[in-house]
Order: sequence, then C-alpha cells, then structure tokens
Amino acid sequence: MDAKIRLYVEHPLGDGQTVPLDRGQAHYLFGVMRQTTGAQILLFNGQDGEWRAEVTEAGKRGGALTCLGQARPLQMPPDLWLCFAPIKKARTDFIVEKAAEMGAARIVPVQTEFTNSGRIQRDRLQAHAVEAAEQCGGTFVPEVAEMVRFDKLLGAWNKKRHIMFCDEALSSSVHAPLAAAHAGPWAIFIGPEGGFSERERARLQTLGCATSVSLGPRILRADTAAVAALTIWQQALGDWR
Amino acid sequence: MDAKIRLYVEHPLGDGQTVPLDRGQAHYLFGVMRQTTGAQILLFNGQDGEWRAEVTEAGKRGGALTCLGQARPLQMPPDLWLCFAPIKKARTDFIVEKAAEMGAARIVPVQTEFTNSGRIQRDRLQAHAVEAAEQCGGTFVPEVAEMVRFDKLLGAWNKKRHIMFCDEALSSSVHAPLAAAHAGPWAIFIGPEGGFSERERARLQTLGCATSVSLGPRILRADTAAVAALTIWQQALGDWR
Repeated sequence: MDAKIRLYVEHPLGDGQTVPLDRGQAHYLFGVMRQTTGAQILLFNGQDGEWRAEVTEAGKRGGALTCLGQARPLQMPPDLWLCFAPIKKARTDFIVEKAAEMGAARIVPVQTEFTNSGRIQRDRLQAHAVEAAEQCGGTFVPEVAEMVRFDKLLGAWNKKRHIMFCDEALSSSVHAPLAAAHAGPWAIFIGPEGGFSERERARLQTLGCATSVSLGPRILRADTAAVAALTIWQQALGDWR
Repeated sequence: MDAKIRLYVEHPLGDGQTVPLDRGQAHYLFGVMRQTTGAQILLFNGQDGEWRAEVTEAGKRGGALTCLGQARPLQMPPDLWLCFAPIKKARTDFIVEKAAEMGAARIVPVQTEFTNSGRIQRDRLQAHAVEAAEQCGGTFVPEVAEMVRFDKLLGAWNKKRHIMFCDEALSSSVHAPLAAAHAGPWAIFIGPEGGFSERERARLQTLGCATSVSLGPRILRADTAAVAALTIWQQALGDWR
C-alpha cells in the first residue's frame, strides 16, 4: 500500500475502531483529495501512533473510516519546549510549523519587553502544528500554549528544565559545549526582534539553569534562529544523534 | 551614532565618495523612512565593507550620499554554495532569504527530476538576498545563479568542491562525522519534495566528493532542510565555530 494521505483526527485509534469525519475533514478527503469508499489513508491522533484506515462512508457533510491496523507506533519527540516571542503573523506561523517539523514537544509563545505582538490566535497556530505533523510524517503534535508573560513564565520555572538561550550578544567564538550538557528536559528561548532586554537577559542568567549559545556572527531573524537553534539542540542532545 | 538604516547600493564606496540614489532608493529613504539632508545611514555594496554616509541631496526622483568613513570591513562568508530544487514561490523566496542570512556565498537553483518548478525569477530572488543582507547586518550579498539542470551542474562539477548531500533515505543513526571532514570549498544539496531520484542519488554518490548527512527522523520540508543543513555545516566547518 502506498497511502500518502495522512489525516490528523481527534478520536481514539485502534483495531477495528470506527472514526467519524467532520464536515471539514470530509470536504478535504472526498472533495479536495477525491477519495471515496474503499480508499485507504493513514490516520494519527498524536497518541495512538499511525493507523491504516479504510473509508467506509463518504458524504458531503461527513463520513467514516475504519482502522485496519497500526502502521507505526507513536514516536514521541524529546522533551523539548520552544519558547519564542511572537513576531509578524506569517513568521510566527512559520516558527510553529518549523517547531512541529523539527520535533519540539511543546510550543510556548512568550510576551517579552520588546515583543510587538500583544496576542496570538492560539487555535490558528495549533492548526499549523497539526498541518506540519501531517506533512512531515510525525505521529505526535506539539501543543501550542497560550501566550504567557516572560516574568510569569520564569517565575514559575521548574529548574530541572534546562534552558538553551540564544544570545545575540554572544560572540561566535564563545560556543557553549552543548554536547556535554545535561540530559533531561530542555527549553529553547528565542527573543524578539531587538532581542531580550538587559533585565530579561540577567533574569535568564541568574536562574542557574540557562546555557548561552551563539548562532553565528550574523544577526538572524527570529524564525531563522528558531530553526537553527532546534537543529543545534537536536544534533547535540535530541533524536538526530 | 546609532544608524539603523542599512542600504545596499551598486556603487563603489570609499572615503569622500559620492553615491547617487535611484528613484526606488530615494522613495525608500526619504518617503518611507522619512530621512532628509544631513541624516546618517549605513551603506554596503557587497565588496567594500560597510560605510557611514550622510545624505547630501534628497529629492523625489533621486538623491545622493557622501561616504564619511568605513564602519566595518567586508566580511566574506565561507566558500559555501547552497544548491536547491526550487519549490513553491513563497518557500523558494524563503530559502534564498535564509541562505543569505546564514552565510552562504552562492545560491544555485537546480532543476532535478522531481522539481515541479520549471523556472525561477532570478532578479526577484536576488532582491530577496539583498534585503536579507540589509536586515541581518551582512556586508556580503550571495549571488543567485541562473537555474541549472542537475545533470549539467554535476557534469561540470569541480571535485575540489565537496558536497554535503542531505539524504532523506539516511537513518538518523548514520551521521557522517562532518566535523572531521575536509576544509575548503563546499556545496550543500537540498532535494525537492520527494527527494532526489534514485539515478540522481547514485550520480551524487559516484562523484566521489559527496558526504551524506541525515537531518533527523522526521521528513523536513525543503525550506526547513535548507536552514538545518546550513546550521550543521556552519557549526562544523564554517564561521559559527
């Protein structure tokens, strides 16, 4: 079977399980992708792995699939958060898409002193994470958290979660030996345009669990920095090793 | 001086040099950015470094600047090419922007067997590279080459230029020791959606100067793969060390 269509559903998946489709899913599967009864596609729900499923009902307003068997077990990403300051809409969408592709477990929009964007559309960002997981073959979908103020986030920080702090002020020659760093849960912090404020930088440093990492001699846009930082972490400590 | 405006010009820069502005540059500087005679900005041309310059003429159809002194010398990126198969317009723009930000020296759009896009707008892509250099503080602008067929590019390949080949078929556990690899000129190859064809993969391998690198267990979109690959190379062999 060469099923290329992968659909995320919010429904339990298991042997013989029937999975109802809502109107939007039915439109996509039967209208856009021209599938019909008997077609086989792949389903995942972020929890039960990836399942082969057959279309058993196809209508304009809905439909149903029946699970045939598990294609792949759930593959959890490492326990890595991406904490970032939202920027322009398109680039924020991009950061969420890339975080899901690159294997972040949780995506946390953070309001910093220099953050222009006062709010986010959490549902829209979550939909981007789902779409990225559908595209990249992932069986897990990272949760997009509600936006949180920097001070509130750090005030409640569990210091067992190490922080990789992408520091624009760091010269390229000072490169932290991340490969020799602690295992366990981590979070990457990406600042907004203009970086973190002096006060925020000091706050991160005094937390005692933050490692500064340089992203080279050029100034990177926040969306570029997010992908570069995820690459560095995944290579040194994550599932790219 | 806290000059934040950086403008790319195609004109020699040097002590006391007068630099004319064309209509588009005048509109940007005087209309959009509200600068006027006496204002100081930064200029670079990709060759002479970054120069402080003062506006000496400001009009609707043009203007002029006079160079005051060099702010920074030219900083060349490593001799790294990014060879990639163009994809959808927005994502192709993105790859060019990111390659300029991340410090590629030359950007080569490649037509592969699975490339959907038969042509590119080279001038538009070059403008994206210029804008990225303006934004990221770079003093160099990578050249965007004309699109070239994969076979033609490899047929004329100088084998002294090593290839980092981002191989989707490679399992994550087989990670080439890039850090111990050859110095000298390199090129990163990023395939289209669907990857390189079997024939193209074989061609790359038999060339004798290609190193396969894994980008982790998830399938990355081509634009994500480009940033991840540039990060890995810059960290191992480039100017992020």
